[in-house]
Amino acid sequence: MPAHERYELIYWPFLPGRGEYVRLLFEETRTPYVDVARLPESQGGGVAAIQRYLSGSEAGVPPFAPPILRVGDLVIAQVANICQFLARRLELVPAEAGLQSIANQLQLTIADLVAETHDTHHPLGVSLYYEDQQEAARERARLFRAQRLPKFLGYFDQILARNESSHHEYLVGEGFTYVDLSLFHTLRGLSHAFPNGYARATERLPNIVALRNRIATRPNIASYVASARCLPFNEHGIFRHYPELDHD
Amino acid sequence: MPAHERYELIYWPFLPGRGEYVRLLFEETRTPYVDVARLPESQGGGVAAIQRYLSGSEAGVPPFAPPILRVGDLVIAQVANICQFLARRLELVPAEAGLQSIANQLQLTIADLVAETHDTHHPLGVSLYYEDQQEAARERARLFRAQRLPKFLGYFDQILARNESSHHEYLVGEGFTYVDLSLFHTLRGLSHAFPNGYARATERLPNIVALRNRIATRPNIASYVASARCLPFNEHGIFRHYPELDHD
Repeated sequence: MPAHERYELIYWPFLPGRGEYVRLLFEETRTPYVDVARLPESQGGGVAAIQRYLSGSEAGVPPFAPPILRVGDLVIAQVANICQFLARRLELVPAEAGLQSIANQLQLTIADLVAETHDTHHPLGVSLYYEDQQEAARERARLFRAQRLPKFLGYFDQILARNESSHHEYLVGEGFTYVDLSLFHTLRGLSHAFPNGYARATERLPNIVALRNRIATRPNIASYVASARCLPFNEHGIFRHYPELDHD
Repeated sequence: MPAHERYELIYWPFLPGRGEYVRLLFEETRTPYVDVARLPESQGGGVAAIQRYLSGSEAGVPPFAPPILRVGDLVIAQVANICQFLARRLELVPAEAGLQSIANQLQLTIADLVAETHDTHHPLGVSLYYEDQQEAARERARLFRAQRLPKFLGYFDQILARNESSHHEYLVGEGFTYVDLSLFHTLRGLSHAFPNGYARATERLPNIVALRNRIATRPNIASYVASARCLPFNEHGIFRHYPELDHD
């Protein structure tokens, strides 16, 4: 990689959010990256950095929303797109095109689960506060915990159960890929947001429970999660713990 | 392409839905394909065909949901993933990797718009009838028409406005790509679902209005849309016209 081609991640500095899916690829591979918006504004950071990209005053095709990745002249957005690009460079996906398509398919299914998780606390619109859509949120969260969460998690458990080539340890092909990192983070987030719903949904899903533990104990991931670089979940992101949305 | 490598699309036979984004790539390029679930069950079609894939009794990694593409031994799902794969083969995207990442970024942004459009009539959950979530749907649709629809359409208009290399005619690079087809179909769907909201949102967006007309008059697209192969929008798909969701 030429020296000027440093990796820059541009994402909200206050929450793990969707940026976390990108950070995990860098952290797992110990690839240096600049978490631009977490720098002070005097160093080109802060929310102002994000605004420069969204407003089109930076190079490239403006993104609709962060996370944004900049590498040299390339500026790209959308989590699954950024992860696909980085995984090829960082060797977190097999070189075979068919397996890359399967990886992308599963990554996009994770993205769908993440979007549905977000909408449990924002079922009516992102411009309203949670408190102003709480009644609808309770109903959406109830259906999510009862139906969607078990369906999605059961699906990923089944993918592992069927993947004999990895001895049921990883989702795609024979070995570890970025999709395993993304599922790991999603499981972390879901168990934070819905401790009751998550415990119930995973009771009979040994493969994803084992995957979560397997990834959590990878040395670079364990050391990252314990570090100050890893932002805790909070009530500004996707995975929010509102006890009233996790009741039976 | 070897003779056994025919393209098979597996999607609900009753609605255009997300399958339409895949069909348009075949239709534009006059590539033969089998619309499997629209065949009679006696020929391996019908909803039973979809169920075989979802239950894992067909080859490959089971998809979470249709549309599904089968080409020889490869079975893949997720619209943006299928379109990315097909666009490379059918030359509906430039060969340059950076432009393919931009195309995928915009395609995923279209997918986000499509998901938000769907949720205007299903804000609480896909397992409930529209009639049982109509009050929440009115509020979500109101915010969608007032905020999200103008934001998304304004975004795509701006992408065209900035793309001097295509003389503002196409979204990615210098020429026509699959992303233009997907935006075209999305605009068709939005104008069907929200005739008032769409008219207002596009009043000052000449670039996307022109793009829609430009794609509609491509000979293969015009002839497809006029054919019986092109299923009309209806109240079972993503783009549903409920007048009460398009009121001011």
